[in-house]
Amino acid sequence: MTIPSVLKCITCGRAYPVEEIRYTCDCGALLEYAHDFSQFDRDGQAWRALFDSRLSLLDLPYCSGVWRFKELVMPFLPEDKIVSLYEGNTPLYTATAPLREYFGVQRLFFKHSGMCPTLSFKDYGMTVLVSVANWLDVKGIACASTGDTSAAMAAYAAQLASKGLKSVVLLPKGKISLEQLSQPISSGAVTIELDTDFDGCMRIIQELTDRHPIYLANSKNSSRIEGQKAIAFEIVQQLRWEAPDWIVVPMGNAGNLSAIGKGLWEMKELGIIDRLPRLAAIQSESANPMYLSYLTGFERFEPVIPKPSVASAIWIGDPVSRDKAIRELRRSDGVMEQVSEEELLDAKAKVDASGIYVCPQGGVAAAGLKKLREKGVIGAAESVVVVITAHGGKFSRAAVDYHSDLDSRYGNRPIHLGATLEAVEQALGLG
Amino acid sequence: MTIPSVLKCITCGRAYPVEEIRYTCDCGALLEYAHDFSQFDRDGQAWRALFDSRLSLLDLPYCSGVWRFKELVMPFLPEDKIVSLYEGNTPLYTATAPLREYFGVQRLFFKHSGMCPTLSFKDYGMTVLVSVANWLDVKGIACASTGDTSAAMAAYAAQLASKGLKSVVLLPKGKISLEQLSQPISSGAVTIELDTDFDGCMRIIQELTDRHPIYLANSKNSSRIEGQKAIAFEIVQQLRWEAPDWIVVPMGNAGNLSAIGKGLWEMKELGIIDRLPRLAAIQSESANPMYLSYLTGFERFEPVIPKPSVASAIWIGDPVSRDKAIRELRRSDGVMEQVSEEELLDAKAKVDASGIYVCPQGGVAAAGLKKLREKGVIGAAESVVVVITAHGGKFSRAAVDYHSDLDSRYGNRPIHLGATLEAVEQALGLG
Repeated sequence: MTIPSVLKCITCGRAYPVEEIRYTCDCGALLEYAHDFSQFDRDGQAWRALFDSRLSLLDLPYCSGVWRFKELVMPFLPEDKIVSLYEGNTPLYTATAPLREYFGVQRLFFKHSGMCPTLSFKDYGMTVLVSVANWLDVKGIACASTGDTSAAMAAYAAQLASKGLKSVVLLPKGKISLEQLSQPISSGAVTIELDTDFDGCMRIIQELTDRHPIYLANSKNSSRIEGQKAIAFEIVQQLRWEAPDWIVVPMGNAGNLSAIGKGLWEMKELGIIDRLPRLAAIQSESANPMYLSYLTGFERFEPVIPKPSVASAIWIGDPVSRDKAIRELRRSDGVMEQVSEEELLDAKAKVDASGIYVCPQGGVAAAGLKKLREKGVIGAAESVVVVITAHGGKFSRAAVDYHSDLDSRYGNRPIHLGATLEAVEQALGLG
Repeated sequence: MTIPSVLKCITCGRAYPVEEIRYTCDCGALLEYAHDFSQFDRDGQAWRALFDSRLSLLDLPYCSGVWRFKELVMPFLPEDKIVSLYEGNTPLYTATAPLREYFGVQRLFFKHSGMCPTLSFKDYGMTVLVSVANWLDVKGIACASTGDTSAAMAAYAAQLASKGLKSVVLLPKGKISLEQLSQPISSGAVTIELDTDFDGCMRIIQELTDRHPIYLANSKNSSRIEGQKAIAFEIVQQLRWEAPDWIVVPMGNAGNLSAIGKGLWEMKELGIIDRLPRLAAIQSESANPMYLSYLTGFERFEPVIPKPSVASAIWIGDPVSRDKAIRELRRSDGVMEQVSEEELLDAKAKVDASGIYVCPQGGVAAAGLKKLREKGVIGAAESVVVVITAHGGKFSRAAVDYHSDLDSRYGNRPIHLGATLEAVEQALGLG
């Protein structure tokens, strides 16, 4: 039986079988999964009913926030190949009144896609990538990553360790934090620290996966995009299949915006939603090549050398998924914005102070919303979903530095007192 | 209308109205919530059907893993007083084959109750405590805590900041980590560092909440127990209302075991389950006063001075909820065990290596299971749920230290190489 899905070149349209381990077209462009959804013969109403019917499930795989949408994610994959850690089903927080006022938007939501097993949205994609690896029966899987990608890959691959799957993480020696090292080693990945920088690790991982039957888990592998589409599916389902006016996404490698855009487009094509939300992609000024390209109508593109930023997860000068993201921005009538360190940290502090703990990249998206609202691009009466990509707990240092800094606009500095009741009463203004 | 719930003394039985802010009985003993469930006139089947019917909900409060069970948690609380951050609904992981083999148990599950908004099980209780505070219309809420309790209290209280609720955290100056400081300050709590130790903070918080209308969020407040019962409710629902043979819980202040025991007991009384699981409470050797008391049949109890332990969240020498826990252990035919640092770290490493990232306290429970299994207390054919209480990401230092130590039994040390493909190939055994 022919599988009604292919890996298709986004530039020349050439199709390759999904059984082939391949990351780019012979023409050099990116590939993406293209599924023939007509095999299911369902209208929008039937799709919605199917996905709603699975909300009450407790069993894997269909209780997962990714695999609930399996037919739209990886329709050909046999169920018994799925590797899931109960990812997804992340909260869509309604903004508190102070946040609605601060951002100037009345219908405001935060999709905390970082509330996943390894504490970032990468789990949405990695459950799919590792499941495909399982189906392809590869014996090795590898990535170069200083953070969330390696954490997610190692955790999902760990579920297959007893089947002989080996996972390999390449890291630049001396350039990563305790938190970043702890996840892959705890999950049992072969963790190799190289005397080089991140780009050096990336070069070696490319050569390694080219020469050996080791599956590449970095962004060039388009199976992750299929899983991350579920962030869009969940948002829309959580809003009762009502598409919001805007979805605001932080942008680094441009994969997440590509995934959310593809998911929305497919839902529109299938009649699951009746209109496309507009996408807003936000970059940090420290790593803004896509924003600069956007200013030229995407006519020109120049990689940049990123400057240090607290938003380290989007500290990328030459985004892999650039062409996919441009397509999604164009077809959703999308916009871009850039934000400064101060703007992203202030916005993060505001969201954090509502009890939702977010990553600096979430701060980038929130700060972008604020600027786009102030410029009138986003209207006060429009509904807006801001995508948060990782849990704030992965970035404790950023929070403590901000709140300890006397110059921080919304700093909440700890108060140091002698250990007496009177001192505490006085500090709290109690008579 | 009289509220059919009271705060009842667990020793003398005296009842106090739930509208009263009160933490102990006049006789000095602990209070607990006692609800008259006969008001609902439901049998076990009807209760199960009610809770199952709410699994498909997307709206707060009933989509929360705590408030889905509202009638058993805080039946009198008006819905509009509930403060929820989508807590609960945490995974019940089926152990992988290597873990089933390692622990010698074929039907083995890990309830990862740490997969909550603030990354620990404290959210189960704190959503209830802050909701009750909201109902009582208190203007201040406070705790002394170096870790998960302050993180949870501050996050839930933050949702009420615009209503004028002030939250206060007392911390011992210079004795807490970056991660521990970051959560309360990010959530906007008044964070006061005192020149004293944890006990000194505790003394001042007691005086402060005695003298002022500030609601105490520490363990003496029994509303948290009502929320934490939902860990038991979820486990049983996830097992299709089939009670497991054993539930294994790490023990520090003894509140979580008390809550899980109370939840199970109430389910049994209401006919929701037909038998009680046996409880196994596990302490670290470094802080084992309950274990020592257990050895005397709970005839004697002496507080201990805890020794330093990587399981810092259960580093408690004089557990507040002792008497509640003893009752639950007695009526469930429960047992206790203690584990060494090495045993807990080895067990944590084994669970982590399956892709489920757990806290050292989770390691304590897992190691306890291993010992009880080896002693034959727990049988190979019995079904066992191990309760994990916080996400491993809160304890990066412990993981990196373990895996870097040459003496660690299951250490996964990073490999340091020069930046060449050949070196990587050689390390991976690739020709």
